[in-house]
Amino acid sequence: MTGRFDTISFLSDFGLDDEFVGVVHSVIRSIAPHVVVVDITHGVTPHDTRAGGLALARSANYLNPGVVLAVVDPGVGTSRRPVAVEVGGGMSVLVGPDNGLLAPAVGMVGGATRAVELVSPNYRLESLGSTFDGRDVFAPAAAHLCNGVPLTDLGPEIDPATLMPGVLPVSREEEGALVGEVLWIDRFGNCQINIDPDEVDRLGSELTLMFGTEQRTAVRCGAYDEITVGRVGLVVDSSGLMSLAVARSSAAAELGLIEGSEIRLSTPEDSGVRGAPIKLRRKDEAQ
Amino acid sequence: MTGRFDTISFLSDFGLDDEFVGVVHSVIRSIAPHVVVVDITHGVTPHDTRAGGLALARSANYLNPGVVLAVVDPGVGTSRRPVAVEVGGGMSVLVGPDNGLLAPAVGMVGGATRAVELVSPNYRLESLGSTFDGRDVFAPAAAHLCNGVPLTDLGPEIDPATLMPGVLPVSREEEGALVGEVLWIDRFGNCQINIDPDEVDRLGSELTLMFGTEQRTAVRCGAYDEITVGRVGLVVDSSGLMSLAVARSSAAAELGLIEGSEIRLSTPEDSGVRGAPIKLRRKDEAQ
Amino acid sequence: MTGRFDTISFLSDFGLDDEFVGVVHSVIRSIAPHVVVVDITHGVTPHDTRAGGLALARSANYLNPGVVLAVVDPGVGTSRRPVAVEVGGGMSVLVGPDNGLLAPAVGMVGGATRAVELVSPNYRLESLGSTFDGRDVFAPAAAHLCNGVPLTDLGPEIDPATLMPGVLPVSREEEGALVGEVLWIDRFGNCQINIDPDEVDRLGSELTLMFGTEQRTAVRCGAYDEITVGRVGLVVDSSGLMSLAVARSSAAAELGLIEGSEIRLSTPEDSGVRGAPIKLRRKDEAQ
Repeated sequence: MTGRFDTISFLSDFGLDDEFVGVVHSVIRSIAPHVVVVDITHGVTPHDTRAGGLALARSANYLNPGVVLAVVDPGVGTSRRPVAVEVGGGMSVLVGPDNGLLAPAVGMVGGATRAVELVSPNYRLESLGSTFDGRDVFAPAAAHLCNGVPLTDLGPEIDPATLMPGVLPVSREEEGALVGEVLWIDRFGNCQINIDPDEVDRLGSELTLMFGTEQRTAVRCGAYDEITVGRVGLVVDSSGLMSLAVARSSAAAELGLIEGSEIRLSTPEDSGVRGAPIKLRRKDEAQ
Repeated sequence: MTGRFDTISFLSDFGLDDEFVGVVHSVIRSIAPHVVVVDITHGVTPHDTRAGGLALARSANYLNPGVVLAVVDPGVGTSRRPVAVEVGGGMSVLVGPDNGLLAPAVGMVGGATRAVELVSPNYRLESLGSTFDGRDVFAPAAAHLCNGVPLTDLGPEIDPATLMPGVLPVSREEEGALVGEVLWIDRFGNCQINIDPDEVDRLGSELTLMFGTEQRTAVRCGAYDEITVGRVGLVVDSSGLMSLAVARSSAAAELGLIEGSEIRLSTPEDSGVRGAPIKLRRKDEAQ
Repeated sequence: MTGRFDTISFLSDFGLDDEFVGVVHSVIRSIAPHVVVVDITHGVTPHDTRAGGLALARSANYLNPGVVLAVVDPGVGTSRRPVAVEVGGGMSVLVGPDNGLLAPAVGMVGGATRAVELVSPNYRLESLGSTFDGRDVFAPAAAHLCNGVPLTDLGPEIDPATLMPGVLPVSREEEGALVGEVLWIDRFGNCQINIDPDEVDRLGSELTLMFGTEQRTAVRCGAYDEITVGRVGLVVDSSGLMSLAVARSSAAAELGLIEGSEIRLSTPEDSGVRGAPIKLRRKDEAQ
């Protein structure tokens, strides 16, 4: 059973240069004026469901109970399903397209307890086109949920097991090196990678970093500002994952890395190490 | 008669990199703490009153009753009038410069019922310069209106017929082709054009698109993701207007179009077609 | 004594493309759901504490009483102190890193009355890394202050005189010219300089502007739109400071200026003038 909510946490790839985000806020306010909308980000690269899913997963531990509205939806207007996914037995509901975007966050908070397909015409806006389900389908569903409309009034229940999974890259061991990739480049140019800090720990405090045809020494540091100018630092970041960084500048720009770039870490002596999947930790699992 | 409002919908060309928007929010909150400010967008191209006016018109059907604060104001500090324009017999009031910015939205909701020039010093902030009427004139007016200050306390009434009109380009027929232009390029690179979907319908489902010295085939599609890779799609967008799009990429970048670019649509056989003005529909006029 | 607050004014260099700002909003809302967060700007150039400090100082006169949360923090995780600085005898509290960022705004409102170092573990979030004190240290402190937690519960009092000062460049006289620099370039390309309007007044209404190896005539104007096309205007801007501007375009782009560029102003006849420090005025000191 879901109850009445007063927060919608909103993430999209709409950007802020057009009126898309403002219109969604307006629709929510016209249906559920008591709701506060917290904008997570609208700067997800257009159509990049993986990047949106990762941003949502990194945020998930901090979001307020209520509705999470997430729209990165290249397939809008096609047969991909619009869904609402209940987690925590009704503590929160994630609303968005069933294209893998919601999956990492749903997994972070223990998985879906129920899900519905958003097909009830009673909770959609009449629409002039089929290109803006954020406005016409997802925002109304999120707002009506906050008003206490039962999840199952929004459409028929679907088996949570049929929801599209998110696909996150797994690191591996290859010729004595940990091989991973850049998951995310933040505003500061720090490069979050999918190699677990525990695995990196086993390689020691000074490592060999390889990417493309280049090789650099990377040094474990406790803070960005402990990185020596000219060196590459390896820092446990605010998600509890490993990030590559440089002193007060962009590691991505300096090293020529983009999201998805392959990177390799090894000890200078190539001691045996094994790849392992990273784990986005809950905040009560601080290491 | 205007009453007490609890929503200000705010659009500007201030961007978000400076503190302009935050200062306006602060001024509103200091005068009318009960008001929720909904940011429509602040990414309007600097000084582009046409683009701002179009964004406001596209949003108008979805905004909450209350005050609309719109500031794209290259003539700030000169003799252009600061105005408040009542629509719907008091349902909403638009506040901004009288430079055409407000006109398309005012037209969308049935025209002005009253208007005043914002000259009363009682409802302005004392100012250090004359370059930021958004902060010193428009935001205070919007906030005081929300507090229930009567419209006519803000300054003398002016004849709504003297308000600067917005000028929107009209499509035309020329040598058997529909000739229009790009009204808006959104974040995704979709190009909204000023040729009515009904007119396009008459040309059939596969059309010849000409722009600059180039010619492409454009195909009517029901959703962006139905467009075949390598083809140009024609999709009825969320405003009910026609947009040019390509598969999961930017049509503007791929075709080299900018806002204002001329485009021509015709049938491969050049059957007779006539130009006609587009109409921004109200949402209860879904086709 | 600080009381209960209902506004947090929030400035950072986090940008809006990542989820940083949304996560901070979420943390505040989870601790102090009654608080409204007003985003001043998050577009401060990464790590640029001077630019952030200036933006905060320009905003200070307009902010609502309550907590100001300011995070431009290249030294996060190092020994730089996280602080809360009370001003106005408890009217407001500024929360952020002790790196000079807060200093110009604190000075604007009369100086610090008390300050504490934010070390109490009771008012921090448990953290997976040490790279995001905005989320883990500053936002919780701000939210708890709004809930009425006494300042001194957040950590031990420190002497306000030990807070890092902000360093703002002072103009000077040299060979008959006023020599200053560009403090800020806004979205419109207007270049705010650190030469006081009163000093400029003494040079007359038509001045010689020198920068790099170039020389232009600059004309005093009352509004941006009074500047003749092709000329450089000198306008008293919304901070009460002097800005260089050009007609409906970017002065920074046209003149090739960046923040920090040196500029010189003189009369065509080089009459004697003296440099003097600028003063960010309070809004009740309108000239």
